[in-house]
Amino acid sequence: MSASVAEQSGGVEELLNANLKGKDLEEVYRILYGRILKPIEFSTDLSKFAADNNIQLAGYVIEAAKEQLRAPRKVRIAAIQNSIVEATTAPIAQQREAIHRRVGQMIEIAAQGGANIIGLQEAWTMPFAFCTRERLPWTEFAESAEHGPTTKFLSQLAKKYGVVIISPILERDESRDDVIWNTAVVISHTGNVIGKSRKNHIPRVGDFNESTYYMESNLGHPVFETAFGKIGINICYGRHHPQNWLMYALNSAEIIFNPSATVNGLSETLWGIEARNAAIANHVFTVAINRVGTELFPNEFTSGNGQPAHKDFGHFYGSSYVAAPDGTRTPGLSRTQEGILITEVDLNLCRQTKDSWGFRMTQRLDMYAEKISAAAAPEYRPHIIKEH
Amino acid sequence: MSASVAEQSGGVEELLNANLKGKDLEEVYRILYGRILKPIEFSTDLSKFAADNNIQLAGYVIEAAKEQLRAPRKVRIAAIQNSIVEATTAPIAQQREAIHRRVGQMIEIAAQGGANIIGLQEAWTMPFAFCTRERLPWTEFAESAEHGPTTKFLSQLAKKYGVVIISPILERDESRDDVIWNTAVVISHTGNVIGKSRKNHIPRVGDFNESTYYMESNLGHPVFETAFGKIGINICYGRHHPQNWLMYALNSAEIIFNPSATVNGLSETLWGIEARNAAIANHVFTVAINRVGTELFPNEFTSGNGQPAHKDFGHFYGSSYVAAPDGTRTPGLSRTQEGILITEVDLNLCRQTKDSWGFRMTQRLDMYAEKISAAAAPEYRPHIIKEH
Repeated sequence: MSASVAEQSGGVEELLNANLKGKDLEEVYRILYGRILKPIEFSTDLSKFAADNNIQLAGYVIEAAKEQLRAPRKVRIAAIQNSIVEATTAPIAQQREAIHRRVGQMIEIAAQGGANIIGLQEAWTMPFAFCTRERLPWTEFAESAEHGPTTKFLSQLAKKYGVVIISPILERDESRDDVIWNTAVVISHTGNVIGKSRKNHIPRVGDFNESTYYMESNLGHPVFETAFGKIGINICYGRHHPQNWLMYALNSAEIIFNPSATVNGLSETLWGIEARNAAIANHVFTVAINRVGTELFPNEFTSGNGQPAHKDFGHFYGSSYVAAPDGTRTPGLSRTQEGILITEVDLNLCRQTKDSWGFRMTQRLDMYAEKISAAAAPEYRPHIIKEH
Repeated sequence: MSASVAEQSGGVEELLNANLKGKDLEEVYRILYGRILKPIEFSTDLSKFAADNNIQLAGYVIEAAKEQLRAPRKVRIAAIQNSIVEATTAPIAQQREAIHRRVGQMIEIAAQGGANIIGLQEAWTMPFAFCTRERLPWTEFAESAEHGPTTKFLSQLAKKYGVVIISPILERDESRDDVIWNTAVVISHTGNVIGKSRKNHIPRVGDFNESTYYMESNLGHPVFETAFGKIGINICYGRHHPQNWLMYALNSAEIIFNPSATVNGLSETLWGIEARNAAIANHVFTVAINRVGTELFPNEFTSGNGQPAHKDFGHFYGSSYVAAPDGTRTPGLSRTQEGILITEVDLNLCRQTKDSWGFRMTQRLDMYAEKISAAAAPEYRPHIIKEH
């Protein structure tokens, strides 16, 4: 399917909702989504404001059972998917400021919609320019995680609205040789930076030429204890690696964000599977966030696929969603429009699912520690049985 | 949704195909299934024979690119989902023989449809009676993996048709204290037993009271080199554990079977996710097979869920499917009917996907070996960062 046709489709849910009705629709959602979730009713003003600004605003509730000894731990998680605003030929500062303004507006809408934790997409302040393999001007988007303009901007919003913000940026580590990293900054509801996490797995596929810009994280799998729950951040390509999700869960994450930038024709059929499988396998909530839109660059580049040189990376298909420990998931945001997905969850569902499915109990971690250690050794001989 | 309503639905694909058309249908399949796969055209006689015997016969082709130095490695994989035949009150030998006859017929159809490797469901010779927690008569279904009546029966068929058969049975290890295991026997196209694999993860959920009948495997993650490819068998509950799939892949599996027995209301929304995620994460084909139908037992039992005692385990929803290394999957077999799914694959797709996505290269196995080893220790302290 050509990019132009794919861009016309709003996504699976739009097509299901338009073509299926009643019991048929219910049955498809039961199998594919776990169930039809109760929507959050936003105020008419807020919904109108979002619509007037061409922002999709969607909200769902994922409930947990009522316990006797623990109060519900209800948290509203917002996932924001945005496009770039200015042309990629505009001055860097102008491009970044325009995105700041746009996403600042979306954060305000999310906060007014009751969000407690707001997750942004990978490298949200910039076009995903690594496809070009050019250095300047793109590396100028890199900035300090602790003191850069983006962190300053978000700290004010976080404090103003009392929200935690996950801000994935291109990081310039000025304290260590100016090295560039792909980093998520975690900003507390107080406005302080709690810490940062870096991308553990760097792609070597398609136009994702990131491995020429930054290396794999040296920070491990930190989990951040916020006012609204324990959070891990598995950046983009890490979602293909089940052990990456596992380590955040073993470090006590209750919510794992997956800020991403990925295009149709490559990953779209995997998108609904991986973050959701991680939610199931680890008894956590996962939040898969993808940018949206097509970004045009000034100079043409090739893709190592026999096709002619071109100036775009393909269509970033959005489709951000939240998956729950019990396998339930929300519908996705649009494939073509910027949007805010607010999901009200009860974090008690993590432990309730541990207690029912119990994969943490049956996972035989000690056995796999031994087996994976053996298999990681260069001299490992696979266990293969042949007919005598 | 009550069992009776759920039993009426043939599954997602039936509802999609009935309600969506043209470009809409194509777009939903593109996102949810990777693409619409080319069907295998079976002879009219074979299709009629299957239909006359109330057996769904479906076939699809998953293609790979043509290479210069390697010939295509085309293999037809059959997944068979069956119901029990006799009432669970019939004599054990009679129950087993009836299932042998029925599945023997299905194997014959699969072989005539060109199957090279045939996978059967978990404990295929018997009702899934572990819900009852009763010993006799159910443990009488246990038999020797090497010399039992089921292996003898299948060896003849394997040799006759030149097919490899994966036969998951309840095993009685007569050579070791008569211990019972949940085991898959791998029978060569020559009729010889190549070896066996046992269930690595035993459920503790719902009515799956298997942990009172058998323990976790002591055989590790063997992979069987057959005439038609290298095969691993991840039995049922092991599909919830990404490390289990991983170890079969690290032992060189190209196809990993997941013979299962699982019911709606519990796992159905996870079913399309887990085996498929494993295919993606490990660059292998996975074959998810579930039994079909509702089984009634003579004595009532409770389910530890506050509901009244009852005599059935719920509806086994079939829906067997094959997932490919590139994330493509076949439609599922019916939720309600016995069936045979034949998928023609080109095993070259495994290495082609390794070479494009390259998760084996980027998975940082040595790092996870260390980290998982640390996390498996009782004294492990999760890496949690708090606000200062």
